[in-house]
Amino acid sequence: MFLRNSWYLAAWGHELGDGLLARTLLNEPVVLYRGEDGRPAALEDRCCHRSMPLSMGRRTGNNLQCGYHGLVFDPAGQCIQIPGQTTVPPGSRIRSYPVVERWKAVWIWMGEPAKADPALVPDWWWMDHPAWRPVIGPVLPIAGHYELVNDNLLDLSHTSYIHGDTIGNLAQLEFPIRTERFETGVCMTRWTIDRPAPPLYQDIGKFRGNVDRWQIVTSTVPCFSDVHIGMVDTGLGQEEGVRRGGLEFHNVNAATPETERSCFQFYAHARHFAQASAEVDEIYARDFQRVFRQDVVAIGAQQKNMDVFRNAPQIDINVDAPGLALRRLIATALAAEARGETPLLRRA
Amino acid sequence: MFLRNSWYLAAWGHELGDGLLARTLLNEPVVLYRGEDGRPAALEDRCCHRSMPLSMGRRTGNNLQCGYHGLVFDPAGQCIQIPGQTTVPPGSRIRSYPVVERWKAVWIWMGEPAKADPALVPDWWWMDHPAWRPVIGPVLPIAGHYELVNDNLLDLSHTSYIHGDTIGNLAQLEFPIRTERFETGVCMTRWTIDRPAPPLYQDIGKFRGNVDRWQIVTSTVPCFSDVHIGMVDTGLGQEEGVRRGGLEFHNVNAATPETERSCFQFYAHARHFAQASAEVDEIYARDFQRVFRQDVVAIGAQQKNMDVFRNAPQIDINVDAPGLALRRLIATALAAEARGETPLLRRA
Amino acid sequence: MFLRNSWYLAAWGHELGDGLLARTLLNEPVVLYRGEDGRPAALEDRCCHRSMPLSMGRRTGNNLQCGYHGLVFDPAGQCIQIPGQTTVPPGSRIRSYPVVERWKAVWIWMGEPAKADPALVPDWWWMDHPAWRPVIGPVLPIAGHYELVNDNLLDLSHTSYIHGDTIGNLAQLEFPIRTERFETGVCMTRWTIDRPAPPLYQDIGKFRGNVDRWQIVTSTVPCFSDVHIGMVDTGLGQEEGVRRGGLEFHNVNAATPETERSCFQFYAHARHFAQASAEVDEIYARDFQRVFRQDVVAIGAQQKNMDVFRNAPQIDINVDAPGLALRRLIATALAAEARGETPLLRRA
Repeated sequence: MFLRNSWYLAAWGHELGDGLLARTLLNEPVVLYRGEDGRPAALEDRCCHRSMPLSMGRRTGNNLQCGYHGLVFDPAGQCIQIPGQTTVPPGSRIRSYPVVERWKAVWIWMGEPAKADPALVPDWWWMDHPAWRPVIGPVLPIAGHYELVNDNLLDLSHTSYIHGDTIGNLAQLEFPIRTERFETGVCMTRWTIDRPAPPLYQDIGKFRGNVDRWQIVTSTVPCFSDVHIGMVDTGLGQEEGVRRGGLEFHNVNAATPETERSCFQFYAHARHFAQASAEVDEIYARDFQRVFRQDVVAIGAQQKNMDVFRNAPQIDINVDAPGLALRRLIATALAAEARGETPLLRRA
Repeated sequence: MFLRNSWYLAAWGHELGDGLLARTLLNEPVVLYRGEDGRPAALEDRCCHRSMPLSMGRRTGNNLQCGYHGLVFDPAGQCIQIPGQTTVPPGSRIRSYPVVERWKAVWIWMGEPAKADPALVPDWWWMDHPAWRPVIGPVLPIAGHYELVNDNLLDLSHTSYIHGDTIGNLAQLEFPIRTERFETGVCMTRWTIDRPAPPLYQDIGKFRGNVDRWQIVTSTVPCFSDVHIGMVDTGLGQEEGVRRGGLEFHNVNAATPETERSCFQFYAHARHFAQASAEVDEIYARDFQRVFRQDVVAIGAQQKNMDVFRNAPQIDINVDAPGLALRRLIATALAAEARGETPLLRRA
Repeated sequence: MFLRNSWYLAAWGHELGDGLLARTLLNEPVVLYRGEDGRPAALEDRCCHRSMPLSMGRRTGNNLQCGYHGLVFDPAGQCIQIPGQTTVPPGSRIRSYPVVERWKAVWIWMGEPAKADPALVPDWWWMDHPAWRPVIGPVLPIAGHYELVNDNLLDLSHTSYIHGDTIGNLAQLEFPIRTERFETGVCMTRWTIDRPAPPLYQDIGKFRGNVDRWQIVTSTVPCFSDVHIGMVDTGLGQEEGVRRGGLEFHNVNAATPETERSCFQFYAHARHFAQASAEVDEIYARDFQRVFRQDVVAIGAQQKNMDVFRNAPQIDINVDAPGLALRRLIATALAAEARGETPLLRRA
């Protein structure tokens, strides 16, 4: 069961070139493409004639032509041409989904089209701002429910274990987290003061000694997480709002459901340091990919085990507070949608 | 649900050599083999002792010996020997299926054995006639219901799209099809007059200019299609019955159900031109195989999409008329069989 | 449905080194490991926090640490540490299984822990006795119910067919089997007198002529089979209890259920001849492995066919008597356990 009246990240903009992209989203096969006019479009991936996937056809202008018998559909899903005949039978249409391109991504709305307000797209302004340097990662196929990705990102204590040789170390565990709830999401904050930087950040930042490190994760219903990470030489007063040197970036994430047991994790890093460094670009492209792929393995194993131990009880620990809060907000939104309401998903 | 009282093509004759051939037909695992006497036989692929597939055993004379404990079965399915004991318990038998070898193929009857009349085998006389040159293609595993293959063959308008670079072009779409119904099947005819030959035929026929082309597809319940194709230089009066030069062949097809979601497409081409040309043999073996494999991919995708979009409505278009007519005949025959009747499957 | 109050072979001792071994036993994912103190331990393979498999974590001393958030479990299944907090919530425990290491194997008890009496482990004393030379085979993944392995081992007539080129020949089929039943198992005996040795034994034993051969299989509920094989030059009076020369070994087997459709076959050979021969070691390691892998293929095919032909009748033959007797004992034990009793599984 997924929240329908929400934007979801369907594809990165660069994924839509001349070809057709087939992707199952919220259990529905969708074909995504970019028309001759450069605008993205998303249609049900099914010809209304004999159910051939339209993604096996071809683009013609701004339209799609089925590869089996040549029916042509416009971006609104209307069949506008049937070879060998002059009329198009009534009902010759398929579903079209509202899409909008923003922050280098294509967002899809799979609920009621009239409610598809572009202002509800998450605000990832760093992705387009000249002072920030974005590096987009590969689309990660996750063999688990999308909320497991939310949990993963809202509880960075896992970095001490899964990523202990790269972006995590044990230092953070000495410091408490703070959880703030707002109407459509939750914010987790942890400051780790006067401690060594984790190995990978040590490499990047070339710190002389200990650092003050912040992790601020803002996650909104249903599946968007902004992981704001930074660190500077300790003692510079960073917690009070001054950043001098060090490193800072936003890791943005969207966990788009594919099925109840799988999702796509879209992620990117936009950094506010060494913006022109190809070497740092490469670290974000290569080393962070390795980090994220460790989570792919872990979440897949977790989902599989949850399926085997179907009703086994689970305990909660301190660091689960933000994730549990987000789960409650999602459950509330789903219940509201089931009652016919459209929950407000804009950040307060 | 499959029609039981019908012949089905189980294997090409050349597939039955010294070995045993395991093939699931109409949801039933069958072992096919050729006895020492050269006669084909078909048994349930299950030893009546501990259920080992007999196809994992070996042929001994005209019989089959189970590879696990050595029980021997004759072509009628009777166990005639049990190692280490002198008696064979009552009930030591498995199902045997009537088979007949004709037109280079082995046909199996999986309904009531008494009704297995060899005269009901489809008449593919071109396959054995000295004036026609047959080339048999590989057995194609189709990940779709066998009626999707019927549809595919009865609606050659698909060749304009899937096979537009080989055996199809857009010219045919300007001409109407004619549908004839008879008691056990349907015939689709299309004449494409004074138009370019499709690319592959252009290569084979070396036509100087436009051609008159005929496509005559005769499909009978449940799964047999004779695709009769020909073309000659335009203006020679072919439609009135005169063929001078050009090319002509029958492409025979049997789509034998494996399961409700899969079938085997057996196909061959028997041609009435360039009978002695090894080069043309090679074109039929290689280029037409590529064409048919494009359909394998398409039908598999179609079936998968139909399963996902389970109850999505479909529209019909003009060229569907023959396929829909055959589907109605199949449904009628199935209903008759469910009532205990044996529908007449001989061509009128 | 499996008998719970029994030992099962969970792993060979050599499989537990520094790493963690994940293995599903009786439908339950288990993690096996050897503590720093050298003692084996078996836990439910699931962290009680967020269900991550503990087998993806690491050993720390005698304990296991989850790889996701660092929770630590002791060998009794109690969570004893949660990073970042000082208390452990009540209920923070997972299942621990009694294990005992004996005969080079680790045995697990998945029923009521209080009933886990080490004296009930099958007596495979040859595996540790200096006069016998053991060679342990690889763990065989069987795609079939574990009772099919019991059947396979209790009916060695199959060696005449599946293994006719190695450890079997047709000679045995001329001789009857004897079946003895005891409280917790069954014993099958066959003496093949004055006949050629099967090919592989001929190689090993370099017999001058015919041999007297014994096959004595003792199988106990639920899944343990001792296959005692020997042969000597014919006429030496072996059947009366005298062995001079020739060869003799015990092939011990445990078929541990993984699921209702799969099991692990653990097997080893302990021989009482050529104990110091590396060449004979190699024959047991290599050639017998080939033999056993033939059964893996056969049993997998048998199970698959049984699933397809779900309710097809089966006949029994003479050599099935021991296997059927063991099946009845297992059924009786299962029924007793379902009534809340603990059937006696010690050999009388």
